[in-house]
Amino acid sequence: MTLDQIAILGAGGMGTAMAVLLARSGLGVRLWARSPGFVDEVRRTRENARYLAGIPLPEPIDLTSDAGHATRGAGLILVAVPSAHLRATLRAIAPEVPPGTPAVSVVKGIERETFARPSRIIRDELGPRPVAILSGPSHAEEIARGLPTSVVVAGEDAGLNLLVRDALNTDRFRVYSNPDAIGVELGGALKNVIGVAAGVCDGLGFGDNAKAGLVTRGLAEMSRFGTSLGARPATFLGMAGVGDLITTCFSPFGRNRALGERIGRGETLAEIEASTPKVAEGVPTCRSVEAMARDLGIEMPITSALRRILFDGQPPLEAVSDLMERETKDEWP
Amino acid sequence: MTLDQIAILGAGGMGTAMAVLLARSGLGVRLWARSPGFVDEVRRTRENARYLAGIPLPEPIDLTSDAGHATRGAGLILVAVPSAHLRATLRAIAPEVPPGTPAVSVVKGIERETFARPSRIIRDELGPRPVAILSGPSHAEEIARGLPTSVVVAGEDAGLNLLVRDALNTDRFRVYSNPDAIGVELGGALKNVIGVAAGVCDGLGFGDNAKAGLVTRGLAEMSRFGTSLGARPATFLGMAGVGDLITTCFSPFGRNRALGERIGRGETLAEIEASTPKVAEGVPTCRSVEAMARDLGIEMPITSALRRILFDGQPPLEAVSDLMERETKDEWP
Repeated sequence: MTLDQIAILGAGGMGTAMAVLLARSGLGVRLWARSPGFVDEVRRTRENARYLAGIPLPEPIDLTSDAGHATRGAGLILVAVPSAHLRATLRAIAPEVPPGTPAVSVVKGIERETFARPSRIIRDELGPRPVAILSGPSHAEEIARGLPTSVVVAGEDAGLNLLVRDALNTDRFRVYSNPDAIGVELGGALKNVIGVAAGVCDGLGFGDNAKAGLVTRGLAEMSRFGTSLGARPATFLGMAGVGDLITTCFSPFGRNRALGERIGRGETLAEIEASTPKVAEGVPTCRSVEAMARDLGIEMPITSALRRILFDGQPPLEAVSDLMERETKDEWP
Repeated sequence: MTLDQIAILGAGGMGTAMAVLLARSGLGVRLWARSPGFVDEVRRTRENARYLAGIPLPEPIDLTSDAGHATRGAGLILVAVPSAHLRATLRAIAPEVPPGTPAVSVVKGIERETFARPSRIIRDELGPRPVAILSGPSHAEEIARGLPTSVVVAGEDAGLNLLVRDALNTDRFRVYSNPDAIGVELGGALKNVIGVAAGVCDGLGFGDNAKAGLVTRGLAEMSRFGTSLGARPATFLGMAGVGDLITTCFSPFGRNRALGERIGRGETLAEIEASTPKVAEGVPTCRSVEAMARDLGIEMPITSALRRILFDGQPPLEAVSDLMERETKDEWP
């Protein structure tokens, strides 16, 4: 099976970058966004100035606000809607989306109330279909600029994984496959929590040792949480685990790390939320994951410390002392 | 069993920082260096201006160039001699070192000709004794400045691991234990190779995606090599694996990363070696590990690419293309 036509739902940075990548590979791409005014503007200027400025959109990309037009005849639907709007957006267009067409999700996050992963929301709202997850360290601008990028595609349907891998892989965009959908999808959500904590570490003026230690123990927490939900430990050693995590924790541009840095310098979450239009994904994910971990009896000391800092007003330095003063133990109990 | 007296062999940055840490914990510390002139100077100024400038040495640290004085009555010998001089240094002082005293090594590297790990060299030269390995993301200056640091102690002797863990652990220096000596010791050597490769990536002007992908696949190589020599995979998810690796790859100060960056910008290894007194550890380690991997039939594409760049004159960009154009595959075969 091969693909000639791909629908992309969501024309944010990632959806647009994927459209550019696929169009350059010679695939037919229909890129859907909800707002007709926005679609008209991007179509006219051939640039998505709001979310991916400076990247000319190749002609074959067909911009549309008609979800039926976007998805009809597509061999694959790539879902790139931000997690906060995923369920509502898909519900609104569901009647126009053909049943059964396989989907691949690049959405990262966990639904606040239900703790549902994006692949589950896609199936809930668009109906039963094979869903793969594409994840890894992948800033949209770098993909669009053709800088080398490596990602992983995961899902229960091995045939779909191979289809996606072969359709998307290029000499600048390397796609690995992995059967572990749960681990890959959780990795993309959990890394945002550790990203906020890494920012706190930066804001406190600590050094490389502290940050590397935090990221390492954060990865251990991610792995512990993931495996208790059925993920494979090796996934956390891969692109959707350590790969995405280190970008989130070390890139100066990440929204989660930047928020954490302001917290570490002494601002409160309320002050930051009042001054910033968009809250970082790691904040609600921290609360959800910590609640789930408590229910499941999984120890997540960094996530718990971050919850106390963000929501209970514990001073960051005190939270760090609590972490450092825990009883000494084996690295892998 | 507890410790009152510890001998530290080697007064470089790491040996001196460990002396400061231990003295602050109230332990008796004798810090040995080979050169009497250097010892006199440090003893007079109470500062190791050459290797750890700006850190006052607490009075209880007893500086000495007499290895017998340093090690007599010590409950533990901490070995902090650079790997390139390890065998010769220990051979010279061996007659003065009491037999059987347990040792802990902070040496990172693999011996060039024999591929021996430091713990083996310590036993070869000082005679049979329990040897533990202390490793992890641990810049000496940050330890000495009291910034939070987390490390791992590993060795076959579980009692020695616990002894070291309890003696060294403080509220600023967190010590985990791990039975996997092979993995912890190999991690400390292999990360330097990936650190050079990460520098090449920086020098080529690539972005966060490329570097995170390289570090992730580098970690997979480290894990593959280590486990085929008997290491536990989980060790590479720990302080001596991913923890030390990310510091080496992301800290702007690392010698290995900096050398790689110059290579990525177009300098040759010969040019760099002519202009720099000390070569980065990752260069000889790359050659040794690549030879071992070939003997053992272990695939290490990044290490091999780096070997071709460093020693066969392959242009870095061409080596990257070769890596990106490899056949697509499963993340964890």
